[in-house]
Amino acid sequence: MISKEILPQQYKFSEKKIDVFFDADFSLIEAKLQKDKTIFITDENVYAAHKEKFSGWQSIVIKAGEQFKNQQTVDLIIQHLIDLHADRQAFIVGIGGGVITDIAGFVASIYMRGVKFAFVPTSILAMVDASIGGKNGIDVGVYKNLVGVINHPEFLLYDYSFLETLPDHEWVNGFAEIIKHACIKDSEMFQLLEKRSIAKFQQSSEDTASIIKRNVDIKYNVVANDEQETGERKLLNFGHTIGHAIENESKLPHGHAISIGMVAACHISEMINDFSKADTRRISDLLGKYELPVSFTSDKEKTWEILLHDKKKSGINMSFVVLDSIGKASIKSLPLDQLHKIFNSI
Amino acid sequence: MISKEILPQQYKFSEKKIDVFFDADFSLIEAKLQKDKTIFITDENVYAAHKEKFSGWQSIVIKAGEQFKNQQTVDLIIQHLIDLHADRQAFIVGIGGGVITDIAGFVASIYMRGVKFAFVPTSILAMVDASIGGKNGIDVGVYKNLVGVINHPEFLLYDYSFLETLPDHEWVNGFAEIIKHACIKDSEMFQLLEKRSIAKFQQSSEDTASIIKRNVDIKYNVVANDEQETGERKLLNFGHTIGHAIENESKLPHGHAISIGMVAACHISEMINDFSKADTRRISDLLGKYELPVSFTSDKEKTWEILLHDKKKSGINMSFVVLDSIGKASIKSLPLDQLHKIFNSI
Repeated sequence: MISKEILPQQYKFSEKKIDVFFDADFSLIEAKLQKDKTIFITDENVYAAHKEKFSGWQSIVIKAGEQFKNQQTVDLIIQHLIDLHADRQAFIVGIGGGVITDIAGFVASIYMRGVKFAFVPTSILAMVDASIGGKNGIDVGVYKNLVGVINHPEFLLYDYSFLETLPDHEWVNGFAEIIKHACIKDSEMFQLLEKRSIAKFQQSSEDTASIIKRNVDIKYNVVANDEQETGERKLLNFGHTIGHAIENESKLPHGHAISIGMVAACHISEMINDFSKADTRRISDLLGKYELPVSFTSDKEKTWEILLHDKKKSGINMSFVVLDSIGKASIKSLPLDQLHKIFNSI
Repeated sequence: MISKEILPQQYKFSEKKIDVFFDADFSLIEAKLQKDKTIFITDENVYAAHKEKFSGWQSIVIKAGEQFKNQQTVDLIIQHLIDLHADRQAFIVGIGGGVITDIAGFVASIYMRGVKFAFVPTSILAMVDASIGGKNGIDVGVYKNLVGVINHPEFLLYDYSFLETLPDHEWVNGFAEIIKHACIKDSEMFQLLEKRSIAKFQQSSEDTASIIKRNVDIKYNVVANDEQETGERKLLNFGHTIGHAIENESKLPHGHAISIGMVAACHISEMINDFSKADTRRISDLLGKYELPVSFTSDKEKTWEILLHDKKKSGINMSFVVLDSIGKASIKSLPLDQLHKIFNSI
């Protein structure tokens, strides 16, 4: 029997074409890459849960967690690459969640001034967000993604069997970004999410595959229209300006932090953009339904200080993403003073 | 009196246009950049010799020397940038020799996923070589430029007054690359160099300006034709495969190491490319005239080991640049075994 050939969907960023294999089997890697030139980068959790997939491949396994998304881990990976005699023909595959795709993409972009790479996202978050758009990088101290480049992988492979071992809290984390996409771009998906729940998605691989594909398309379209983040791409920061600061201050998981950040951004939207209180309530209810926190618990003054250093800051004004309605967002440039006052009042 | 407007020469790499201001005054920077957004990166030597130029500008001053072209210095610069509240609108200017332009270009390329930057090369080497072509990066242990990206500055400013304080050994260093350009691309310039000397260039700023411009054009044309280094750009590695290994093994200055590397490459060219012994002699004499060493003094076996790890290595074959005649070079792909034997025999 001849196995069916899987045809990728093609996404294009500037000059670069990226093949995306949705609903593919991990073994497709063998057809695409040579074992002696390929190096997998993954974390201990993914490796432990899927050992059989790594058998026979050169693999660099790093510790799991955002706290290892730093220069020390980059140094360690580069030392491994040297030890493996990786040359300019090396091909790096990042297999894991957002931390792995961010760090693998960054290392591949700087090792020997850039070798080719691909991603196999294994978490909802990485599938719908982190692995699309070419942003990669590491944290420096409290500053998220302070160092990195923009560079796209050769291909993305979606093997949903990885989700079977994904912990529940990682489903929650990922749905925060899905709800964000709904808020800024897709009111129909917002309604769909209101009818479902994480448990329901976990029970239906078809629904999960479909919602993932829908979110990849949303993110892809936004990024492809504005790769350098001068306009529309900034909308993806909805909930993230405050969210990242909360994440730093409180060490909450990314999804939790941006969930609180989104609710805060809704309140700010009410105040400066006539966004309706009722819609803030709908968003807050939906986040709650997906087991995400919605109230501010971290130290506000510390959070503000970190926010001030946030990399989106540009002089005395700050770009801030507000909602016009559910499914439609825009960017306001606010004086920092005014934002500080509003922030303290919510 | 209205000061004359200096018009840049424009060089183009792929999509990117770079303004090159030849024979300009450093003060032009004031007309081009805002003080509050601009951050200079320089080294202690350049800073000490030209303090007045840095007055009133935010400056990061690092230790001088190739041994500091590493991740630790990158970490240090990034910490400085954070402390200076540098945001995405920051503009970095690398003012110095090749180490400074390499590291400043790399930091600017990764800080916040890339901020704009420019170079003011202050050494012959940086003027004719390091600051052109978009290659930047750092060393990792013994491996030269193992980490970096390809990214171009917004502009280059050539202020030849910096050469007045350039130590003699740095003139020697720079002329190694000039002689390299002559060997691979410009037999007429080779003849011109035979008639001159470093002392003569130092006495004539006009001749120096003219030879620098000529070398920028050579490097620019080679790079613009082959930015990704798949073909012609590799010619610029003439003398560098062995030269880099010598530099690592013996800690000789870059120019000295590649001078020895070029003579070795001439001998190899005799053996595998019918290059004439007489021309090897002419090249060796010219290098000697410019105070560069021509005989191998470092440990051959260690040098070979380092060469094996050299980043140009691709599987069991290695690309090696040979001369056809003075002014004309080509690339041979050689089995490593054969290269090892030849290397031992020279």
